[in-house]
Amino acid sequence: MAIKSLINGMSSEAISLFDRGLQYGDGLFETIAVEKESLLCWDEHIERLQSGCRRLKLQIPNQDTLAEEAKRLTNSVERGIIKIIITRGQGGRGYALPVNIDSTRIISLYPWPEYSFGNPSDGIKVHVCNYRYAHNSILAGIKHLNRLEQVLARSEWADSSIAEGVVLDHEENVIEGTMSNVFYIKDEVLNTPELSDCGVEGIIRQKVITLAAELNLEICINKVSLKSLMNADEVFMCNSIIGVWPIKIIDEKPFKVGNKTIQIKKALQKQNCIATL
Amino acid sequence: MAIKSLINGMSSEAISLFDRGLQYGDGLFETIAVEKESLLCWDEHIERLQSGCRRLKLQIPNQDTLAEEAKRLTNSVERGIIKIIITRGQGGRGYALPVNIDSTRIISLYPWPEYSFGNPSDGIKVHVCNYRYAHNSILAGIKHLNRLEQVLARSEWADSSIAEGVVLDHEENVIEGTMSNVFYIKDEVLNTPELSDCGVEGIIRQKVITLAAELNLEICINKVSLKSLMNADEVFMCNSIIGVWPIKIIDEKPFKVGNKTIQIKKALQKQNCIATL
Repeated sequence: MAIKSLINGMSSEAISLFDRGLQYGDGLFETIAVEKESLLCWDEHIERLQSGCRRLKLQIPNQDTLAEEAKRLTNSVERGIIKIIITRGQGGRGYALPVNIDSTRIISLYPWPEYSFGNPSDGIKVHVCNYRYAHNSILAGIKHLNRLEQVLARSEWADSSIAEGVVLDHEENVIEGTMSNVFYIKDEVLNTPELSDCGVEGIIRQKVITLAAELNLEICINKVSLKSLMNADEVFMCNSIIGVWPIKIIDEKPFKVGNKTIQIKKALQKQNCIATL
Repeated sequence: MAIKSLINGMSSEAISLFDRGLQYGDGLFETIAVEKESLLCWDEHIERLQSGCRRLKLQIPNQDTLAEEAKRLTNSVERGIIKIIITRGQGGRGYALPVNIDSTRIISLYPWPEYSFGNPSDGIKVHVCNYRYAHNSILAGIKHLNRLEQVLARSEWADSSIAEGVVLDHEENVIEGTMSNVFYIKDEVLNTPELSDCGVEGIIRQKVITLAAELNLEICINKVSLKSLMNADEVFMCNSIIGVWPIKIIDEKPFKVGNKTIQIKKALQKQNCIATL
């Protein structure tokens, strides 16, 4: 549970039953790493949040207000997570967008997660999910509140040594993890799935793509088969909280924690994109 | 807004921020018509709710408790709506299913809706949505809380003379409305889209299908093209609250309010499946 939460600027942990976030999953969210009071990639998160609001026709929250409220929560925080949820607000029964509705702004500070599977820097164990993501080009890329697909994919394993799952779409393309994006390196080329049909356009995913040029890695954003992933030289998963997690096992297949993955992780840390602690 | 709500049996209108219903849309719902204190098609709603819980791996609420709480709210209610929401419950940050979590049970009484477009019995005006439903066979049929697709489809019109929208899937098959199922009659055959890839398996839809035999109508549940719908003799939409709404206009095309539609509506009323007031 969160350490502290602000709902529309007021300290609270309760929300109206009639908020459309609960009734319909009508909203979106951002999850941001906090290190030494600093909110990592804040501008990029706010930009994605605003773009998501535009796509879902949500009222865009004032960004200065968001920044001020996030700062209130992260004051003297060494390490933590800020989760921002924006919902369409409180509305009547029915899907129709209420007129003049104010979006609901929820900002919560969570403790930094503790992992049960050892030090992720040594490489993580990954399960290939049976669940298949649906194609939905209108919602693809948005970090919206309709997350039943992720919940169902994540429900496939209880083995605490498994850190993450790889999820394919119904055409058998690798898309991403349940909570992270996936990259692999093969013959000096950095590959990641294209996400026009489903998936979340991760902030760290974009940072890694931008970084490729600086590291003299060719980047390929395309459809990815499970076979290509399994034949990779190096594989890693990334998001704003985990940073970069090298993969050491996918189902039974072992991978080495490669130099390029380590290089990418260090470069992201140097640019203050991911946590260093 | 609701007249009265019970959360896990306690009168309340506030829910924890950490409920997975809000965080992930991790739950489902039922919407039930109330007439003269009676909850129409109660058994069928509870059966679908339980089946949805099993499919989403949610803890199934005790049905006697649900019945007792619904009765508390509908005591001396002439006409209204009971909405039941079941969420996975309060859980930590992350998609993983918490161990030993208790599902959250929300039951609300809403007033009977007033419509802006005149008497629906005279036939309604319907918009063909540009939004296309995504295929997701795992979630298809379930009345789950991930309703952004319906919100976006419904957001396409603000004209209060339009009562409902018809939504197709990305393969251009007619699926249903934004909040109702759709049927059409052509040459004595009653047709409705099959819903294995998307859509909600409505309680009234099932009642209409069962009724067809009694009314000597051949029933055809199959893929439906917009062209077939537009060439129908009669078209209607149905759900637990609206009952049966004959369609008089789809986009510009006029339809007559046909005898078979009226016959079906009367038969459903006689069987106490839909409201008569």
